[in-house]
Amino acid sequence: MTKAEFPTATQPLAAPALGEPYLLTPGPLTTSKATKEAMLRDWGSWDGAFNLVTAEVRQELLSMAGVQDDSFACVPLQGSGSFSVEAALATAIPRDGKCLILMNGAYGQRAAKTLDYLGRAYLTLDKGDYLPPQPDEVDALLKANPDVTNVFLVHCETSSGILNPLREIADVVKAHGKSLIVDAMSSFGAVPLTINEIPFDVLVSSANKCIEGIPGFGFVIIRRTVLEAAKGRAHSLALDIYEQWLYMERTGQWRFTPPTHSVVAFRTALEQHASEGGVAGRLARYTRNRDVLVAGMREMGFKTLLEDRWLSPIITTFFSPEHPNFEFKRFYEELKSRSFVIYPGKLTQAESFRIGCIGQIDEHIVRQLLRAIGDSLEAMGVDMEQTTA
Amino acid sequence: MTKAEFPTATQPLAAPALGEPYLLTPGPLTTSKATKEAMLRDWGSWDGAFNLVTAEVRQELLSMAGVQDDSFACVPLQGSGSFSVEAALATAIPRDGKCLILMNGAYGQRAAKTLDYLGRAYLTLDKGDYLPPQPDEVDALLKANPDVTNVFLVHCETSSGILNPLREIADVVKAHGKSLIVDAMSSFGAVPLTINEIPFDVLVSSANKCIEGIPGFGFVIIRRTVLEAAKGRAHSLALDIYEQWLYMERTGQWRFTPPTHSVVAFRTALEQHASEGGVAGRLARYTRNRDVLVAGMREMGFKTLLEDRWLSPIITTFFSPEHPNFEFKRFYEELKSRSFVIYPGKLTQAESFRIGCIGQIDEHIVRQLLRAIGDSLEAMGVDMEQTTA
Repeated sequence: MTKAEFPTATQPLAAPALGEPYLLTPGPLTTSKATKEAMLRDWGSWDGAFNLVTAEVRQELLSMAGVQDDSFACVPLQGSGSFSVEAALATAIPRDGKCLILMNGAYGQRAAKTLDYLGRAYLTLDKGDYLPPQPDEVDALLKANPDVTNVFLVHCETSSGILNPLREIADVVKAHGKSLIVDAMSSFGAVPLTINEIPFDVLVSSANKCIEGIPGFGFVIIRRTVLEAAKGRAHSLALDIYEQWLYMERTGQWRFTPPTHSVVAFRTALEQHASEGGVAGRLARYTRNRDVLVAGMREMGFKTLLEDRWLSPIITTFFSPEHPNFEFKRFYEELKSRSFVIYPGKLTQAESFRIGCIGQIDEHIVRQLLRAIGDSLEAMGVDMEQTTA
Repeated sequence: MTKAEFPTATQPLAAPALGEPYLLTPGPLTTSKATKEAMLRDWGSWDGAFNLVTAEVRQELLSMAGVQDDSFACVPLQGSGSFSVEAALATAIPRDGKCLILMNGAYGQRAAKTLDYLGRAYLTLDKGDYLPPQPDEVDALLKANPDVTNVFLVHCETSSGILNPLREIADVVKAHGKSLIVDAMSSFGAVPLTINEIPFDVLVSSANKCIEGIPGFGFVIIRRTVLEAAKGRAHSLALDIYEQWLYMERTGQWRFTPPTHSVVAFRTALEQHASEGGVAGRLARYTRNRDVLVAGMREMGFKTLLEDRWLSPIITTFFSPEHPNFEFKRFYEELKSRSFVIYPGKLTQAESFRIGCIGQIDEHIVRQLLRAIGDSLEAMGVDMEQTTA
């Protein structure tokens, strides 16, 4: 790979099709033309050619997680990322186990709700809308609750856009000899997360996030000993990761009909990920997107929810300006008419909105977005100098 | 719509891309170019434009099932068809209910396995590999087991290719006042199945069968009173059809990330389904495919597993010829090298293979297939006149 193949500041990404907005959301996101074009043929789900694609994808994902031996397996699963999270929780937590859920947003809450369905015991450390769980808090909870078997952490909680202190927490969990489940849905592929740095047992992510694929499946990267202990543990046939793995190992096929087009598109997306320089290359582009975005927004008078050190390169929450003419719905439509789709906020306490930095977006596009935001505010009659937030 | 828009014997379907085989399988199948091209743009899963697509698709499916009022709801669900079947079983069968599963192949067996996971009571009428469950047998079982609450039947059991006697069984189930769950996975869209003809409570199918969409989701058409009684009944957050429905009704959105590209492709597939003359048009084409296939195969000396009256227009099982040179793996590869992918058999007693009649296939393509089969047999040195089966 030559350096010229990296997208750089002087080499803008291709624009989407005419009339198609950029998706500045946490996914599904704007994908490359090549990724979508990979879906222009049909594949037999039972055929050897498709089995090879599945095998390649599984192997690539293990490599991305730094797995160099057979101590881990990668098990893809049909459905959205939340299907894979549910499957991972049902697989990793023993039926008589107990999970400590570290919560600071919707995805931690969803894990707790999932365990309510599963009837598995858990306790939570709930930090509210956006505060990070602290390693010493986790340490204290694990000391006070020796019956805890697993700890669940969302790496990047897109509710606020915070990048949680995964490494520090993983070390605490390891020191207590507990099993760590990382929801790396919106970080894997863009934020380094390898087994030699982060001692996890289970990592969950999905096709349509930082690897820039098409939605249709998620995947679980799981320590083989954990998987092997999980026979008969699942609550659901469809979500039984152990059986999915066993069948895939034996036949090379998915147990039930796979989202063939999405899987093939994902292989193409993985090739592009590699040509961009892998996780490091992608992190560089997304970080640049975020830096240009945050600087430009602050220049206009917007404020971020989080301090700089907690800002992820994935998605950023901005407070809505306190101005009588500002209304999110209108702002959203104004931006959409200028070819940008943003995301509503998810804070319980304050009005906010979110802008993603992931997908086929580079700093040139972020600058266009900033101009569109300026124009939208003007169209709405919102003078940022008159706002209080 | 003018008559000229119908695919007819004089108007062959477009061939797939160069080097791409026809998929003569029960799905994923060969889809149209237009359906695949609908995936060449990205959609925000939260955006109003995508919500409209979802609403259109749900409404079209209800219409196809003959629903003309709000007595039924259509709930799409991420994942393969089996995810939707599991979700439907968990929703329709009360936790203290009991299901009679009519079994004559893999999909009836899978329903039983699913209920093992769910811990719901059931009994089975197991007819083995391919015999149809008879209405009087169902009647006797329901008389003998008054505690049965639901009956589960696979409409077209693709294990053998049989079209089960749905109407007669539905009448028996109704006479007993029981709730009928129809797995119409591989029949819906090509075999008439409307609520005014078949008194069902639940019908399950998926995107990538007779409506000729792309895999990624299934859907459940369910009587609203059954759905409304199902709050809190599901065993799984991801597969909770009640919550999926509630959320979709309230917001127009899917609860978790939808397979956006697959949904949009499905809308395009539905448009083509309508231009082909709806269910009747599709049934006519598939039936013609099957008739040409079966006649041609018999002419070569092949035998079908089933008598004519049980043959579905979906997929047909043929016995493998008893000839020392015939080996399925070789036959498969010979046919694949001639651009046709067929399907292995699933009988426990006899060697067999299956050929699908669904997807973007017409009688011209079936005739090409027949020539390819003749050529493959010749290449393998299988003289059908020397076979015993």
